[in-house]
Amino acid sequence: MKIRHIAGLAALLPLAACSDRTPERPNIVFFLVDDFGWVDSSVQYGDELYPNNLRFNTPNMQRLSERSTVFGNAYACAVSTPTRTSIMTGMNAAHTHITNWTSAMRDTPSDATGGGFWMAENKGSGDAAAGDLLSRPDWNINGISPVPGVTHTQYANSLVQYLKDAGYFTVHVGKAHWASAGTPGVNAYNHGFCVNIAGTMAGMPRDYSGMDNYGNTKERWNDFAVQNLVEYYGTPTHLTEALTMEAFKALDYPIKHKQPFYLYLSSYATHTPIQPDERFAQKYRDAGMDEGQAAYASLVEGVDVSLGQVLDFLDEKGIADNTVIIFMTDNGGNSENKQKGGVLHTQNKPLREGKGSNYEGGIRVPLMICAPGRTRIGKCDVPVICEDMFPTILDIAGVRGWQSVQDVDGESIFPLVTGNGRGPSPERPLVFHYPHKWKPYDLEDIDFLSAIRIGDWKLVYRIKEGTRSQLESLSPEVREAARAAALELYNLKEDIGEENNVAARHPDVVKRLADTLSSRFRRWDTPMPIVVATGRPAPLPDEI
Amino acid sequence: MKIRHIAGLAALLPLAACSDRTPERPNIVFFLVDDFGWVDSSVQYGDELYPNNLRFNTPNMQRLSERSTVFGNAYACAVSTPTRTSIMTGMNAAHTHITNWTSAMRDTPSDATGGGFWMAENKGSGDAAAGDLLSRPDWNINGISPVPGVTHTQYANSLVQYLKDAGYFTVHVGKAHWASAGTPGVNAYNHGFCVNIAGTMAGMPRDYSGMDNYGNTKERWNDFAVQNLVEYYGTPTHLTEALTMEAFKALDYPIKHKQPFYLYLSSYATHTPIQPDERFAQKYRDAGMDEGQAAYASLVEGVDVSLGQVLDFLDEKGIADNTVIIFMTDNGGNSENKQKGGVLHTQNKPLREGKGSNYEGGIRVPLMICAPGRTRIGKCDVPVICEDMFPTILDIAGVRGWQSVQDVDGESIFPLVTGNGRGPSPERPLVFHYPHKWKPYDLEDIDFLSAIRIGDWKLVYRIKEGTRSQLESLSPEVREAARAAALELYNLKEDIGEENNVAARHPDVVKRLADTLSSRFRRWDTPMPIVVATGRPAPLPDEI
Repeated sequence: MKIRHIAGLAALLPLAACSDRTPERPNIVFFLVDDFGWVDSSVQYGDELYPNNLRFNTPNMQRLSERSTVFGNAYACAVSTPTRTSIMTGMNAAHTHITNWTSAMRDTPSDATGGGFWMAENKGSGDAAAGDLLSRPDWNINGISPVPGVTHTQYANSLVQYLKDAGYFTVHVGKAHWASAGTPGVNAYNHGFCVNIAGTMAGMPRDYSGMDNYGNTKERWNDFAVQNLVEYYGTPTHLTEALTMEAFKALDYPIKHKQPFYLYLSSYATHTPIQPDERFAQKYRDAGMDEGQAAYASLVEGVDVSLGQVLDFLDEKGIADNTVIIFMTDNGGNSENKQKGGVLHTQNKPLREGKGSNYEGGIRVPLMICAPGRTRIGKCDVPVICEDMFPTILDIAGVRGWQSVQDVDGESIFPLVTGNGRGPSPERPLVFHYPHKWKPYDLEDIDFLSAIRIGDWKLVYRIKEGTRSQLESLSPEVREAARAAALELYNLKEDIGEENNVAARHPDVVKRLADTLSSRFRRWDTPMPIVVATGRPAPLPDEI
Repeated sequence: MKIRHIAGLAALLPLAACSDRTPERPNIVFFLVDDFGWVDSSVQYGDELYPNNLRFNTPNMQRLSERSTVFGNAYACAVSTPTRTSIMTGMNAAHTHITNWTSAMRDTPSDATGGGFWMAENKGSGDAAAGDLLSRPDWNINGISPVPGVTHTQYANSLVQYLKDAGYFTVHVGKAHWASAGTPGVNAYNHGFCVNIAGTMAGMPRDYSGMDNYGNTKERWNDFAVQNLVEYYGTPTHLTEALTMEAFKALDYPIKHKQPFYLYLSSYATHTPIQPDERFAQKYRDAGMDEGQAAYASLVEGVDVSLGQVLDFLDEKGIADNTVIIFMTDNGGNSENKQKGGVLHTQNKPLREGKGSNYEGGIRVPLMICAPGRTRIGKCDVPVICEDMFPTILDIAGVRGWQSVQDVDGESIFPLVTGNGRGPSPERPLVFHYPHKWKPYDLEDIDFLSAIRIGDWKLVYRIKEGTRSQLESLSPEVREAARAAALELYNLKEDIGEENNVAARHPDVVKRLADTLSSRFRRWDTPMPIVVATGRPAPLPDEI
């Protein structure tokens, strides 16, 4: 049962009262990058610059960071759709029940099984294979929906609709990936966007190159072929560049008409396919990177150039001073794909693991916010999370008194940027949940993990171990070992790499975090994977 | 060398001065149908209702006609792109040199040859085959361009850019087909549209059904798969309906913000593929139509329902009184496609021939204009032509003093609607030019025809015959017979079916029309097909 949420202390204003522009309504650019890791730029998000930071050429990210509040403890979900839908709804992914990415076509679970696949070409049922311990939970496989009654979706009012209702000209460019084709949620226009370029059900681009028509060729086509870019077919225009240019065209109208705008510029890069952007790749090869690493670094540099073009565009239009920029990534860097070169599972060092995982490598992400004239420039280490973007952006836009059908979990972090007002507490619990199997093979540090962070403490719940600890078919010894392995505790302040599980030394902390996590899951009726042997949901962390 | 055109007597206003809305700036809906014939509805465009008029169920077109000026002598070009680019530029197709439709990919002539094809799957070179008399002219195979310097394009300022500059919120929905992929002209955003739904290089839809994802499936994909409709994939939503619903979403912003809008709702229907729209097809089958005819009639009814939805939408939003509606077709009904059922080349009776032909069946089209409170309701028989839409729409929008890089050939016909001011003369020459071969087989009443109408007189120039009359390799008798057959004269008032060639009886009229046509072609440097035997352009009508 959902209740209505009334934010802040502001009086309820009829939305129509917001329809004229005031100087308080800045333009907002949300620059969202894909699969781009925490250490994959020269920007220092951590306490120090790590070796990986030195491998990438990102002068424009650097330029933005020097005007921004740089969040060193910013989080997203472990994969794409949960983050993107949390941004749109303000809800935690364990609350939307959108805990995995959505497939291209509706009613198609993206969960892998023992022998299953999740590619569009080869849809898996998500059902358990013989020998699996767990099968997929009953999650919202169709994503979000702006209307009620659509099966397997989270019905919610979108951030963007509030902005549009408040007079913002709202522009979507790039990757959407909130919902599956064949549902209302897949259509950006249904969420309050005035313009949509290239946003579909696609979670990745079929092809980055205009020479391949971004995948729109008979020989090379699937649901991820990128739409709306026919101008560049047969030209060497890289996808990242094409999207950036289309964004500028879409902004022509609000700039001319002095309407505030919200640009959600959501790069498909640096998602797979890791194809080299030949504008930039050679210098990384020359620097000794292998082909995959060089290709990835070239995609990163393409994103950096795009950001620079945005900054230049705002300067040229004379609107930089009245435009807030949010730079973020949708999940951690991919460390489980051979295309990317290098050594698997090490790409986000010092962070453990990468995309898909609820270890830090999968969820800790770059985040910078620049509000010209109002920004406390420098690092901020208060932990923040993707669902905070919903109230944060409405806060920036000056939209007050909004009501939503959903309970919003996020809090505005804009006070952390400006120093005005109270931001979220550093001790606020942040919750992560990935009750899925990612790939046909087992990935012990990715599949079926939940986590919670409170202050410097982080608890990781290994659902498979928790399940084994309850299985009566197993021996007491095996069950006890599983119980001991199910809950890991890390002190992130001292151990950012999550190398030292200190659960045994801090049973009180483990219990407090496990209780909080379980309590959230109960409140949100969070789906757990199904134990194949019993047909019942896997246990919550406080049940083991 | 192009000169600048200054319309009307109005002082030159800086465009910025137009950026606030005045009551004189009505919304404008341009409802453009595709391949929809002159007699394919219950609306009476001719002097009488013909048998064909009774076969179609089009109550909404009827409803609009009862509020409109109904043009009985309205013309378009014989095929799609020339009409669409004439609307955008205000130029005659013989002047833009865009005399045929543009192929999906740039630099690809769409001309057929003896053994050539023009489908995307099977690109033809457009070069002459052995035995051909004529090969393709050097026309602007890439369509229009909003920027100079693009090979084989007509550089022009678009109608839509003026509207946008004057404060209109400009929405493109449906078929564009102004230019080939890989050029700036293919991108609606480059022509001044604020929103573009589904407009690409495609001249036809890959598939009308949402169940087939409008052609976006691996099994059924080519460049004509329709973009931007992912919401409806796997649902029975017909393309015409999906586009209509998306149009309404796009209008949400300008209606809320009280910005005038221009909606160019350009249906893909009733172009091939002639697939039955099962919402409507059965009643036509039950009425005894063959499957092709029933399918076509169902596509027509889908368009009619869409028009009704637009009229209802305007009523519901309370803006019908301030919205001008233009209803038109891009060329005559297709009478050369077996999919459509019935007897080939008879579909537009009483008009001769159909799409592709410069006989009346190919170029005389439905046109209605409704300007609430200002319309002289009823028939108007002054001949008008597609390039008139450019100055007409700017006239309706109250945009004055526009300047363009191109010479505009059209005239505002809005005075014919309102009775205020002077519309074009009934004796104004209207020019038509199709210097192409349409299909791999010869179509004598379609291929390589030019025409001119002045008042009730129409001259048809058969370029093949004109060419033969000049070929020294032929005998004097053959050349003389060709000369006699090259120029046909019809009195359309008496002979709407162009059955009685009266050229021999009116040599003075033939000469006057041939001279005028030739003079236009010379002024516009109009491309003529190339005579294979000589390598030189085919003769103009006054040269034979």
